[in-house]
Amino acid sequence: MERVSVEAKVLKKNDEFAAENRALFEARRLVVFNMWSAPGAGKTTLLERTLKELEGRLRIGVIEGDIQTEIDADRIRSAGAPAYQINTSRCHLEANMIQEALERFPVDELDVLIIENIGNMVCPASYDLGEHARIMLYSSTEGAEKPRKYPKMFFRSDCVLLNKVDLVPYTNVSVDELRANVLAVSPRAVVLPISCRTGEGFSAWIDWLTAAVERQREAFHVSGGARTNPGD
Amino acid sequence: MERVSVEAKVLKKNDEFAAENRALFEARRLVVFNMWSAPGAGKTTLLERTLKELEGRLRIGVIEGDIQTEIDADRIRSAGAPAYQINTSRCHLEANMIQEALERFPVDELDVLIIENIGNMVCPASYDLGEHARIMLYSSTEGAEKPRKYPKMFFRSDCVLLNKVDLVPYTNVSVDELRANVLAVSPRAVVLPISCRTGEGFSAWIDWLTAAVERQREAFHVSGGARTNPGD
Repeated sequence: MERVSVEAKVLKKNDEFAAENRALFEARRLVVFNMWSAPGAGKTTLLERTLKELEGRLRIGVIEGDIQTEIDADRIRSAGAPAYQINTSRCHLEANMIQEALERFPVDELDVLIIENIGNMVCPASYDLGEHARIMLYSSTEGAEKPRKYPKMFFRSDCVLLNKVDLVPYTNVSVDELRANVLAVSPRAVVLPISCRTGEGFSAWIDWLTAAVERQREAFHVSGGARTNPGD
Repeated sequence: MERVSVEAKVLKKNDEFAAENRALFEARRLVVFNMWSAPGAGKTTLLERTLKELEGRLRIGVIEGDIQTEIDADRIRSAGAPAYQINTSRCHLEANMIQEALERFPVDELDVLIIENIGNMVCPASYDLGEHARIMLYSSTEGAEKPRKYPKMFFRSDCVLLNKVDLVPYTNVSVDELRANVLAVSPRAVVLPISCRTGEGFSAWIDWLTAAVERQREAFHVSGGARTNPGD
């Protein structure tokens, strides 16, 4: 069927671009995260607080994906980090959009690049951007059964942050049930309850992130990434 | 470009199926709503409460769209209404899926059909299902600026319900700012703050829904829908 074959071609082409991105990141020893969630789960707020916590320890840049507006990139710049805004009419970022962004957004001075995807709990999960790890932010107020209804994004995430736990006492959601549902579809995921507003659970998230950066740097070293960028 | 032309063809074909659905709904004098939101805004909870409020006044059936599971259709059946579950690997419902569902889901005894779309604030807005009106549910806890970042779904909605207003006092969201942002992208929308949990604002929603049903029945009558289904 024509439609399915075009979709398959788009995904195959995306994987080729993603592989090129990954080679570029390796050459620059740049550790890259793809961060995704439904709209409003708190990705930008998480980034603002994370940038503050890691100021002076890691040089972090952000690529923001949104359908419209430059609101999120402006917030990241106000938090003191370099940011590049992609506006796309599509419901997800694709690897070639990141490649085009990298032509305009200087990453040579960065240790870490975080790509904030479009707010959407379905489509972004199908598109590899060349990242080294995937972080999912889930708004705990939105119900405990969602991992079973939207499994792919949970399944593909390395770290699942259960945000807004400060609001959970005012709802009928059980964080234990939510965590069990995440682990049912994604047994290998690290699941961390947090509140970007109050700071609850934030140190565990910072520990995960910094350890993930260290692990990837070690992987670069082992795979010879250092040789391709000897000046680093 | 191949990809864009296939997408245009898919949308054109969808519009043809939607027109067929609309003719079928008119022949049966069935008033149809397309209900959409991001995952977890509370669509199924809204329906459960609405079915209870309108029991004995309107015969309502529900088509549930989900990527996986029959959780939502089971909840609707427990609330006493007929429900049909569509499971699709796609991130949105399309008009032909509704047509196929109608072959198996008897709607002759119904006054109203509500189609609960996939939880996604982007893709469903592009696909007409043949509905007479569109209802958007937005979770107020997820931020006041989202209508500006995801304008299409707000723009295409006849009624925008700002749900979870009972949780807003525990956040830094302003409902006034949120409402202003909805009206900025969709000046003709009816905007109603509600809480499906506490029942706040629920009577205004029921009033809107019953008035919309009456308006559409009058439109059927004027357009001669009664003649195409003389036994009604």
